[in-house]
Amino acid sequence: MRIATLGPEGTFSHEASLKYGKSSPISFANTIRDVFGLVADGKADIGIVPVENSIAGTIGQTLDLLLDYKLMIKAEEIMPISHNLVGFGRASEIKVLYLHPQTYEQCEIFIKKNFPKAEILQTSSNGRSAEIVANAKDKSKASIIPKIAASIYKLKILKRDVQDSRFNVTRFFAIGRNDGKKTGYDRTSIAIYPQADRPGLLHEMLGEFAKRRINLTKIESRPSKGKLGDYVFFIDFQGHRAEKNSADALKNLEKNFFVKILGSYPRKY
Amino acid sequence: MRIATLGPEGTFSHEASLKYGKSSPISFANTIRDVFGLVADGKADIGIVPVENSIAGTIGQTLDLLLDYKLMIKAEEIMPISHNLVGFGRASEIKVLYLHPQTYEQCEIFIKKNFPKAEILQTSSNGRSAEIVANAKDKSKASIIPKIAASIYKLKILKRDVQDSRFNVTRFFAIGRNDGKKTGYDRTSIAIYPQADRPGLLHEMLGEFAKRRINLTKIESRPSKGKLGDYVFFIDFQGHRAEKNSADALKNLEKNFFVKILGSYPRKY
Repeated sequence: MRIATLGPEGTFSHEASLKYGKSSPISFANTIRDVFGLVADGKADIGIVPVENSIAGTIGQTLDLLLDYKLMIKAEEIMPISHNLVGFGRASEIKVLYLHPQTYEQCEIFIKKNFPKAEILQTSSNGRSAEIVANAKDKSKASIIPKIAASIYKLKILKRDVQDSRFNVTRFFAIGRNDGKKTGYDRTSIAIYPQADRPGLLHEMLGEFAKRRINLTKIESRPSKGKLGDYVFFIDFQGHRAEKNSADALKNLEKNFFVKILGSYPRKY
Repeated sequence: MRIATLGPEGTFSHEASLKYGKSSPISFANTIRDVFGLVADGKADIGIVPVENSIAGTIGQTLDLLLDYKLMIKAEEIMPISHNLVGFGRASEIKVLYLHPQTYEQCEIFIKKNFPKAEILQTSSNGRSAEIVANAKDKSKASIIPKIAASIYKLKILKRDVQDSRFNVTRFFAIGRNDGKKTGYDRTSIAIYPQADRPGLLHEMLGEFAKRRINLTKIESRPSKGKLGDYVFFIDFQGHRAEKNSADALKNLEKNFFVKILGSYPRKY
């Protein structure tokens, strides 16, 4: 199995790819769109892409690409996001912190409390932060990075798990040419275009699930390409599309709405 | 009126603040959390924060901060996101592009088509890209930035609107101590904690809107702080909370769920 994921090395996407693919070869792409492209062109079998972070929210681009490409969700992975302070000196010697903006945001309270006077220099990725600190080999320079970046750049972890929220996880999708086989503990993701706009429309859609006692695990409206206020709904529900109850709900929805099935896959939560 | 927004200068948040506040003084904060803090502490009257981009999706942090702080949404602003190629030479002389990763993502097709051989160097913000190119004064170095950044750094626009999607807008909230007065063309944002998890729950919630023919304009589930699969729903609907129809729906929802009203404000779309 050849995996494609978002680069550079040392990011959480890299970590998720190792978790999913064990020792499979990994290609690093510059953007999420490129990951989809590599899989669609047959240059990779599986693409590992982030879909939502519990702090930052949904990665809209991934949902849009699932609409555009004829690829399906084969699996989900839940990765705890752990940020780690790395450097060469003691905490008291640190004067400059190289940080990716999202890392800064997720560790802001820790940084303000422990390094109120440190200079903060922004970097373009966690991998890049690691590279700068590793090359500098200077006690005054430190960073906060994922474990995998510390390991690639052989940096010593001074303090583990310095993220502000204990509940910080990112959900990834493994995308491929087919979705997952039925395991009895599955989830299905779909997109629905209402093709109309009137009060009660969404209520009507959800009625198909409610009357079959199907549990929804996520719902999100996103502007469709047309204009603001024109929406596509992304819905996750418990069950596999091959199960009768789910199949009935989908069949009824398809009578009134345009439905795209993004895939059924084993539940990881 | 004193405005606080996300810095540095030259970002789309800056542009939205100028649109909302005309010539009001603007303070630039490092993070969205700091913008909320400045308003809560009375150091600013209004905070301008991004809440969703039509390409990238919802900015989850803004929703979470609306739950945490006792501030309300006073207004919304819709900003078209326009990316512009700037530099000193002709397009054919450009060899290096300084780009914020999100800008790269939103102009990827344009860049690959027009500058297939250019070196891409990532920067930490659009303002920073502008600064680097302005200081370099070199025909081989260019960037893609918002109009306001070009104007601050006195950079010549070589080509306007090079973003890949014509439909690229960001919605901002103006937050303050109170929400907006009734205008007759309003929207209301609320958060609902279901305090339970069973099939049909969301269907039941939405029934309160459907039976009053209130039109929903956005719905999003977000993991609450507890665990994945434990959700808070963010809903926008047409109408002001001071109107009888809306007030009735909210009163009925409050009987069964925990509801936080985030504010009513004039609709901009």
